[in-house]
Amino acid sequence: MTSPAERPPGQRAGSRTPGRALIVGTGLIGGSLGMALRARGWHVSGTDADAARGAEALAMGALDEVGSDPAADVAFLATPVGVLATVAHEVLAASSNPSLVVTDVGGVKAPVVAAVGDARFVGGHPMAGSEQVGLKGADPDLFVGATWVLTPTPTTDADAYSRLQAVVTSLGADVVALTPADHDRLVAVVSHVPHLVAATLMNAAAQGAVQDAALLRLAAGGFRDMTRVAAGHPGIWPDVCTDNAEAIVAALDRLLGDLSTVREQVATADRGALLDELERASAARRNLPARAVRPEHLSVVRVPVPDREGVLAEITTLAAALGVNISDIEIAHSAEGPRGVLLLVVASGDATALAEAVDARGYHSQVSELA
Amino acid sequence: MTSPAERPPGQRAGSRTPGRALIVGTGLIGGSLGMALRARGWHVSGTDADAARGAEALAMGALDEVGSDPAADVAFLATPVGVLATVAHEVLAASSNPSLVVTDVGGVKAPVVAAVGDARFVGGHPMAGSEQVGLKGADPDLFVGATWVLTPTPTTDADAYSRLQAVVTSLGADVVALTPADHDRLVAVVSHVPHLVAATLMNAAAQGAVQDAALLRLAAGGFRDMTRVAAGHPGIWPDVCTDNAEAIVAALDRLLGDLSTVREQVATADRGALLDELERASAARRNLPARAVRPEHLSVVRVPVPDREGVLAEITTLAAALGVNISDIEIAHSAEGPRGVLLLVVASGDATALAEAVDARGYHSQVSELA
Repeated sequence: MTSPAERPPGQRAGSRTPGRALIVGTGLIGGSLGMALRARGWHVSGTDADAARGAEALAMGALDEVGSDPAADVAFLATPVGVLATVAHEVLAASSNPSLVVTDVGGVKAPVVAAVGDARFVGGHPMAGSEQVGLKGADPDLFVGATWVLTPTPTTDADAYSRLQAVVTSLGADVVALTPADHDRLVAVVSHVPHLVAATLMNAAAQGAVQDAALLRLAAGGFRDMTRVAAGHPGIWPDVCTDNAEAIVAALDRLLGDLSTVREQVATADRGALLDELERASAARRNLPARAVRPEHLSVVRVPVPDREGVLAEITTLAAALGVNISDIEIAHSAEGPRGVLLLVVASGDATALAEAVDARGYHSQVSELA
Repeated sequence: MTSPAERPPGQRAGSRTPGRALIVGTGLIGGSLGMALRARGWHVSGTDADAARGAEALAMGALDEVGSDPAADVAFLATPVGVLATVAHEVLAASSNPSLVVTDVGGVKAPVVAAVGDARFVGGHPMAGSEQVGLKGADPDLFVGATWVLTPTPTTDADAYSRLQAVVTSLGADVVALTPADHDRLVAVVSHVPHLVAATLMNAAAQGAVQDAALLRLAAGGFRDMTRVAAGHPGIWPDVCTDNAEAIVAALDRLLGDLSTVREQVATADRGALLDELERASAARRNLPARAVRPEHLSVVRVPVPDREGVLAEITTLAAALGVNISDIEIAHSAEGPRGVLLLVVASGDATALAEAVDARGYHSQVSELA
């Protein structure tokens, strides 16, 4: 295995020799994945519970063939969450490839990751495409610049994770490693609760319009922006709300408290507090990056690690907690004993801070710049 | 005065001979108005408390000249709300034109309309351009397809209103007539409360990001859409929240109740109620028209009316309550006595329903189609 620093310039993980991919569920995400992988030289097989949709994916160029593939190197499961663990076990059991890694694309991670419970399964959540519905919207560039969460656990196979991270990165996505529980808690704040709020605002306006026909004619761009997400996918939300109930309730309680504070500021004409609230929000929104920042230079953090469970999840989720974006990760195993070297390519964020945090946990890391 | 039916085809109110316009406050809205009016042949004078900004508006082609204009036919006041009543009185007092009509462009109407209290002042609120800041974003097409609320009251001069409606319609906007109180109540629901919610969501996420650096990397398109309005204009919100406190508190209380219901549905895993909630929102959002519907044909409702105060506000706000879009309005005064005929050109909505509602109030109207 070559270290990132030894590769020719420009050759990153994404340009490793592609292999064979399997996609189960060829809707918007599955179809987009098939197109993106084929464009990068992968052989892509795929199946769908709806045979017509599998055939359509083939006709659209999202698949090389319809059917399963025991030799697949990577399997993306884009099925309804209710059948996901069963499908994962089937794919793992049918595989003839010892280096298979399996992932999914669902919006809630802890229940699925616990239900599958296999070292070669890594939970995933590409944060793209949630508003369009169906295979017709499939797009090979859907993941370019998108955040894609992977959720390693202490039992995740580090090599499997490393291969999956390379594939996902090669599609143009920025991988963020989080524990399944952290993922679920954070998406409750930035996705699930905002969606429920959008639906609630839309329903209140629609109900008000029964009394006041003019109401929706006053709905300008801001209201349209705020309620846009409510247009899509009602069918997935009972599952999302059930699977992530605890985090959603906590985030909703926080929001209810915050809105009650604003209500008091309005009721008491507390102009200073209102201005402060709105100035902070304005500054924060203007600082929200439009896209993931593309790296100008890369750093490498080398961490000698014991060859044991949990190291990968510990260090990758530590990086995410520090805002450090790992664009590539490799494990150089030692031939001589139960140790290896973890190589983390840092695309953005403070590589030195990561190294210090890693060392504070008892490791001895080194940082270098990658030309 | 010609009735709309007697005009040549295609000649609508907007193509009346333009006259002289005055703009006080040449920011985004004032500058856009100047450009739009000049493009339609108006002579536009303008002033700004910031002399440099007035000069810039002239240089950009938004004005024919810097300065006031006692001969103006229409004056648009786009000043901060705190000085608006004073400016309105000054403009009215300085006018040498008995047919002057004065309007404003602020986001809350009842306090301003009450403070000015003149029959030739009609409150206005163009629902466009709220996110951009400053004269540099001025655009002559800013109002094309936008909803523009006018707020006649029982003491509004009907001819002044009619002339203003014609000017606003000629800029491409769709006029909705509402009482000042109804305007304020409805914008609390579709604009003010959504804005406060966007700011609250943004602040909660920004605060969460202090603990979890990865949080904002998970903010995908839906979150960006929902918080976009929070980026703009913090400075106007203390005024808006003070001037419209009662309606905002009522709408916030309603939202807090609705969100508490959703919270219980999540906490108790009430999948049926959640699905119903999200399906209703999805259907309502998909039915929200992207733009005002352009009329395929026009109807005219003729209403003989006594020449007295209150008739205009009564009938135009009745039309808005019925969802009827009045694209032109004229008052044909009788030379023989204290009566006249109100001509309402209906661009969309049920003209017959309007006529029936008008008749239910003791009038005797007629409906005809306009070729």
